[in-house]
Amino acid sequence: MSVASPVRETSSKASIDAIVALTAPAMGEVNAMILAMAGSNVALIPEIAEHLISSGGKRLRPMLTIASALAYGYRGSDHVKLAASVEFMHTATLLHDDVVDESDLRRGKQSARMIWGNQASVLVGDFLLGQAFRMMVDVGELSALRILSTASVVIAEGEVWQLSAAKRMTTGEADYLKVIEAKTAALFAAATEVGPVLAEAGPEAQAQMRAYGLNLGLAFQLVDDVLDYRGTAQALGKNTGDDFREGKLTLPVILAHQRGSEAEKAFWRGALEGGENDDAALLEAKRLLERHGALEATVARARGFGEKAFGAASALPASPSRTALLDVVAFCIDRVN
Amino acid sequence: MSVASPVRETSSKASIDAIVALTAPAMGEVNAMILAMAGSNVALIPEIAEHLISSGGKRLRPMLTIASALAYGYRGSDHVKLAASVEFMHTATLLHDDVVDESDLRRGKQSARMIWGNQASVLVGDFLLGQAFRMMVDVGELSALRILSTASVVIAEGEVWQLSAAKRMTTGEADYLKVIEAKTAALFAAATEVGPVLAEAGPEAQAQMRAYGLNLGLAFQLVDDVLDYRGTAQALGKNTGDDFREGKLTLPVILAHQRGSEAEKAFWRGALEGGENDDAALLEAKRLLERHGALEATVARARGFGEKAFGAASALPASPSRTALLDVVAFCIDRVN
Repeated sequence: MSVASPVRETSSKASIDAIVALTAPAMGEVNAMILAMAGSNVALIPEIAEHLISSGGKRLRPMLTIASALAYGYRGSDHVKLAASVEFMHTATLLHDDVVDESDLRRGKQSARMIWGNQASVLVGDFLLGQAFRMMVDVGELSALRILSTASVVIAEGEVWQLSAAKRMTTGEADYLKVIEAKTAALFAAATEVGPVLAEAGPEAQAQMRAYGLNLGLAFQLVDDVLDYRGTAQALGKNTGDDFREGKLTLPVILAHQRGSEAEKAFWRGALEGGENDDAALLEAKRLLERHGALEATVARARGFGEKAFGAASALPASPSRTALLDVVAFCIDRVN
Repeated sequence: MSVASPVRETSSKASIDAIVALTAPAMGEVNAMILAMAGSNVALIPEIAEHLISSGGKRLRPMLTIASALAYGYRGSDHVKLAASVEFMHTATLLHDDVVDESDLRRGKQSARMIWGNQASVLVGDFLLGQAFRMMVDVGELSALRILSTASVVIAEGEVWQLSAAKRMTTGEADYLKVIEAKTAALFAAATEVGPVLAEAGPEAQAQMRAYGLNLGLAFQLVDDVLDYRGTAQALGKNTGDDFREGKLTLPVILAHQRGSEAEKAFWRGALEGGENDDAALLEAKRLLERHGALEATVARARGFGEKAFGAASALPASPSRTALLDVVAFCIDRVN
């Protein structure tokens, strides 16, 4: 499947090479700061933090913070601290998420809670969130503090919402989009909005980069939802089929349920309410998703948000930062191929 | 048992009446703000938050923030937001603590995790912590932000430390004091230090109120440790004997272990490592604590920290705030009687 036209303009094969190259010098400092701020005399903290850090996330969010600051000509060094804060907020969320979802794998490796237990995962998550705030406070930019602290509230709110909506088949597409806007897209939006804030680029620039991050985050999550049914564990960084096995409601399921017969609706209700689904049920789920084009439709939604993100970043003057930001959109969507 | 002399100067029967009266107008606003900031369209959030809010903690920490601001002549309204932040930080910690300790009761009522599950407790804790930061950011005072965000890191660090130290009988008195300084006293210290910060009373006043809060927090926790073996569930706000039943290492246990025979040492090791102790074991534990004067010795330590807190607040000029702060010290220690 190829990505629709404007997203395709960027480069022949979508990749994050451009943003990696653009942000490499700053990301060296971000990584050093992450290691330093994950340090503690309490040995368990750096142990768990380094497990997460070394387990090879792409560091997409902090790269976006760096790139969005550079895109507006920022020449200071505070973007490093904010980027590290964003990554810590993300890592804290992952730790707590794994506890909440009872996940065994994270990025293809055993999750922290499986090795050190739920207790340590909760508390080390709290530690990292606290360190994130300390770094933001160090920067001392109140607008950035407001944006990032608001994101932390919205993310938690989204997670609680998902908890209550997770098993309800009455959750429709619009509700689901609100959940992922909160739990995933809000951090992307905050990560990219603080760039122009640091560069003092004005409210219009801020709104533009917020729109970029928000739509990118929505596209990113929807592609993740599709990959859970179609991808490989390697591409996804966790077991495929996990969402279904755990009875998690995602957009493909919502669409297949809506479009399904009464018998199929009953299948989805049973699968989501039961929560412990076997491989045979997963095969049946994939068959129904295929029959109703639910994965295709989800990809189409993702592409729609990708277009919006692309449009927001297109307004930037031509520069390596602009190219990097545009490429990220194409990359996120191309993961389904 | 009566409290040693200087602490006794304040009033005939130690109570928090003075601080309650002093802070009543501001605490009305704090309570309104707490309710407002616990609000959310996600119904589960206000439900859990109100469960905690209505379960009748004394709100000692926010009262301390208000009183410590008033003690330095503060006339603004930002102390209300910081006090609400402090209470939210505390509530978030309680929610996560109950998950980590697998507690059934909190303040004499069923704990949130028993009603809504661990998942919701983790996530609503995250929500409240995020709201705490938002309120601090609203105040826009970077020193206060630094003090409170640092406290959030230190608390989490202390909790992780306790997790690893909890079952190790090699943890000595000095190590244990460091743990409770982090997990309990750090928030008291931050709560009282931000008062003079708001009042712009200068670094000496800040240091004084920090010392007051820190020592008060240490005394408070040690008295809690004693009450777990000697108090009533009503005075403690949770089941007595819980620490022992869960195999939690506290100062009375450390002292009884140190002073015990080899057979007694083996009893404590077994009890703490096993972690699931019955009523017969609890009776034996109480007998050993009594034999070695471990509870008395812990109260003496608490009284020592109380004296220091008292000394720090004594430096204030005579005022209703000074009386209120001094009374709180006597009250905290008098709980063992």
